[in-house]
Amino acid sequence: MMKTNPGRFFEDYRLGETIAHAVPRTISGGERALYHALYPARHALQSSDEFARSCGLNAAPIDDLAAFHVVFGKTVPDVSLNAVANLGYAEGRWLKSVWPGDTLTATSEVIGLKQNSNGKTGVVWVRTTGHNQHGEAVMSYVRWVMVRKANPEAPAPETTVPKLAPVIAPGDLVIPRGLDFTGYDFTLAGEPHRWGDYAVGETIDHVDGVTVEEAEHMLATRLWQNTAKVHFDATLREDGRRLIYGGHVISMARALSFNGLANAQMIVGLNGGAHANPCFAGTTIKAWSEVLDKAETAAPGVGAIRLRLVATSGGAPFALKGEDGKYLPEVLLDLDIWALMPI
Amino acid sequence: MMKTNPGRFFEDYRLGETIAHAVPRTISGGERALYHALYPARHALQSSDEFARSCGLNAAPIDDLAAFHVVFGKTVPDVSLNAVANLGYAEGRWLKSVWPGDTLTATSEVIGLKQNSNGKTGVVWVRTTGHNQHGEAVMSYVRWVMVRKANPEAPAPETTVPKLAPVIAPGDLVIPRGLDFTGYDFTLAGEPHRWGDYAVGETIDHVDGVTVEEAEHMLATRLWQNTAKVHFDATLREDGRRLIYGGHVISMARALSFNGLANAQMIVGLNGGAHANPCFAGTTIKAWSEVLDKAETAAPGVGAIRLRLVATSGGAPFALKGEDGKYLPEVLLDLDIWALMPI
Amino acid sequence: MMKTNPGRFFEDYRLGETIAHAVPRTISGGERALYHALYPARHALQSSDEFARSCGLNAAPIDDLAAFHVVFGKTVPDVSLNAVANLGYAEGRWLKSVWPGDTLTATSEVIGLKQNSNGKTGVVWVRTTGHNQHGEAVMSYVRWVMVRKANPEAPAPETTVPKLAPVIAPGDLVIPRGLDFTGYDFTLAGEPHRWGDYAVGETIDHVDGVTVEEAEHMLATRLWQNTAKVHFDATLREDGRRLIYGGHVISMARALSFNGLANAQMIVGLNGGAHANPCFAGTTIKAWSEVLDKAETAAPGVGAIRLRLVATSGGAPFALKGEDGKYLPEVLLDLDIWALMPI
Repeated sequence: MMKTNPGRFFEDYRLGETIAHAVPRTISGGERALYHALYPARHALQSSDEFARSCGLNAAPIDDLAAFHVVFGKTVPDVSLNAVANLGYAEGRWLKSVWPGDTLTATSEVIGLKQNSNGKTGVVWVRTTGHNQHGEAVMSYVRWVMVRKANPEAPAPETTVPKLAPVIAPGDLVIPRGLDFTGYDFTLAGEPHRWGDYAVGETIDHVDGVTVEEAEHMLATRLWQNTAKVHFDATLREDGRRLIYGGHVISMARALSFNGLANAQMIVGLNGGAHANPCFAGTTIKAWSEVLDKAETAAPGVGAIRLRLVATSGGAPFALKGEDGKYLPEVLLDLDIWALMPI
Repeated sequence: MMKTNPGRFFEDYRLGETIAHAVPRTISGGERALYHALYPARHALQSSDEFARSCGLNAAPIDDLAAFHVVFGKTVPDVSLNAVANLGYAEGRWLKSVWPGDTLTATSEVIGLKQNSNGKTGVVWVRTTGHNQHGEAVMSYVRWVMVRKANPEAPAPETTVPKLAPVIAPGDLVIPRGLDFTGYDFTLAGEPHRWGDYAVGETIDHVDGVTVEEAEHMLATRLWQNTAKVHFDATLREDGRRLIYGGHVISMARALSFNGLANAQMIVGLNGGAHANPCFAGTTIKAWSEVLDKAETAAPGVGAIRLRLVATSGGAPFALKGEDGKYLPEVLLDLDIWALMPI
Repeated sequence: MMKTNPGRFFEDYRLGETIAHAVPRTISGGERALYHALYPARHALQSSDEFARSCGLNAAPIDDLAAFHVVFGKTVPDVSLNAVANLGYAEGRWLKSVWPGDTLTATSEVIGLKQNSNGKTGVVWVRTTGHNQHGEAVMSYVRWVMVRKANPEAPAPETTVPKLAPVIAPGDLVIPRGLDFTGYDFTLAGEPHRWGDYAVGETIDHVDGVTVEEAEHMLATRLWQNTAKVHFDATLREDGRRLIYGGHVISMARALSFNGLANAQMIVGLNGGAHANPCFAGTTIKAWSEVLDKAETAAPGVGAIRLRLVATSGGAPFALKGEDGKYLPEVLLDLDIWALMPI
């Protein structure tokens, strides 16, 4: 019996099956410090225990995206080792904050299957849920990927395309228990702009840029125990380049968005996202945002803001797609999220 | 209203105003581990809880310079985002050790203003103080920077140049409460040389060198939440290089100085410092020291030593300035500090 | 008196002397997080407190090799600063797990001396023991290095070559107290292969590869406070390259071996090892293993497996030596270890 993991191929997935992903992971202050070293993350709620307490939490949670990466990383050996493309995200919700000391595990349910017409690949939809050591769900999201078939002759499964919400309804967002922005300190948070200061349709150029290095994206991707070979092994691609984990670009864009969205303290919803173009070391990542929607929440002083967060490798801000409807070559990421702000 | 932070310009400062800097930061063992990964730091007091206890402390504090960097980093968005040059430091004192679990904030008082004769820039002096979550000051220092004016027509403020001590009087140094070197273990500390073994005027070549990488200085600078663009964005300078944060050079030189000054366990005073020349990735940093002064302290077994700590990019040790009185091109840093040693 | 450490030369060692190494080090979750960022480490026992508890431990210990590196790093200033070559390891045993909060120290006993016939160098054998803050030995191993003489005229010591076990007898392996694999969760661990599924003589190609960067190996080597100049200073070698610490290759190979040996959870014995060829940044490290032996243990559900772990810079897996009996140029490491697996 072969001892190494060949990954799953398209014909290996069954609709409705649940995959328990391997390697539980205990988070500590070390992961937080590394997150702050890898990204220019400055949101006060994840940076300071004291600030988090002033907002009704027990201590500063781990960055929302760090929790996402840990959960995502666990799914890679089972979901995307033989993936040709990461096609999309939907219905992502952060359900409970992650704190140093928590141990995370992940499971994925196969909720959709569709063989491509070429017969060589297919699309797999999974709903992945991360749990903490108490069995509580900490986050959940749908991802779909295009996966190779090992055997092109394998019969096609019945096509099932899940019906996914194009956007999470504000009422379905989970606000961390106890969160209260009524005593929010805008000075310590770094910017005066409150929820009411943002208008739907407004765009923000986050101005700053970071030129990324091989060592950095590999440190990050390994930290999340993501095993996709193409991020680490320069001998795999003909051009000798290592593809940067898309999540690295997400975290970089989110951290850059502090400058203009310092008060968008927590990400609670992931409505969708596209890794529009691949990213490689040497790229200078920049970011811009567009306010897509706003909603009230039941938590005191807390508003929700829906943002398009775009990462680019240059070009003018606010340009997204060409006349052909395709992403411009300099667009790396087009993410659609819900975040929480003081009203 | 523009949402991003443009930074302050010279005309935005008012003498006597106090600026509360944003983004409080909780320190953990993660920051300590990263400090030890980024610099060849080996001073036993910051490396070992047990060693620190044998010296009368409760546990190993975070490296003195790490505390400095965290405080310094907070000031960047308000003080040096539009700085043309970092001109100097004075009257820096470490007032209380920082421990894992502490949350740091920073404020700066504007203590001096002087418009330059060209009318386009001015010098701003600030006294920055870092506080922990108990409201206790952990360190304080004066820094002055040359800052651009946004509007050259803005009227010049009344010139106020603060009178700064050229060197901190030994009696003004704050010795950590409980510090006691009478049972000091020189073997565990790594060198036999005590305070009495160093003579004023003595010079020490620290021998070792470190060739610095882009990924490293960016990891460090982000860890301190320093937002100065020029350290991260390779597209800003015409030569496509990223300027290394001067504090990275300070920490590298200090760590290299272990070899010859292993028993200079804590930095308690920053008398002055100049970033003599810019540093870029690929440079091999070396360091040398000169004993400038010595003083006794009231703490048992503890002596103070005043050191000139010089970082270079090569060249012969102990050469500092040319016949023209200017720093030699290979000198990166000329720092003047007080440290504590076992007598 | 010269203040810097020149390192010891061959004539400075005395048979039977014990060297107490400097700079005790307290480990935290930060070191664990960095270990996971630097290497694709995924063994569940070191990744998850919950998984470790399910195996009878109190929490996830620090990776066995991280403990080794910390102990090894302490010995460098006294043992290998003037080493010409690192010749071998033997009789290495992990005696007690290391946990966040532990403080490690190290001592080495000189157990062998042999001057080389050229009169310019000699071989020094040391038995190094690492201790925690309770004075308990956490690991012990023999290492021998070739060291320069400072004075070629210094008389040769009496030759003493220690008799070393070619392999640690299974009964001498120390199983962590409480370790119990009877309730082992193979799904969470990542692979179904148990001790009984491996046959002596079996070889495993670990498939994955990592292209190493300068920043990474320096971060790792500094984290272990290893002071060997050649890892950090690009000006030392004529070719301008920095030699990668051999332990970095060991940890990389071990982490890569997860893919095929995910259940070889703990390393408890180091029978021997050779750094067959030097490694430099830009190399893509791959790994393969060979099962050399198997043994039962007294612990419930726990078997021991003896593995040859080979790191390469390419080439076909399972090729080790040429017809001349010498290591092939692509072989970086040939390590002989005992690990523990669920039976």
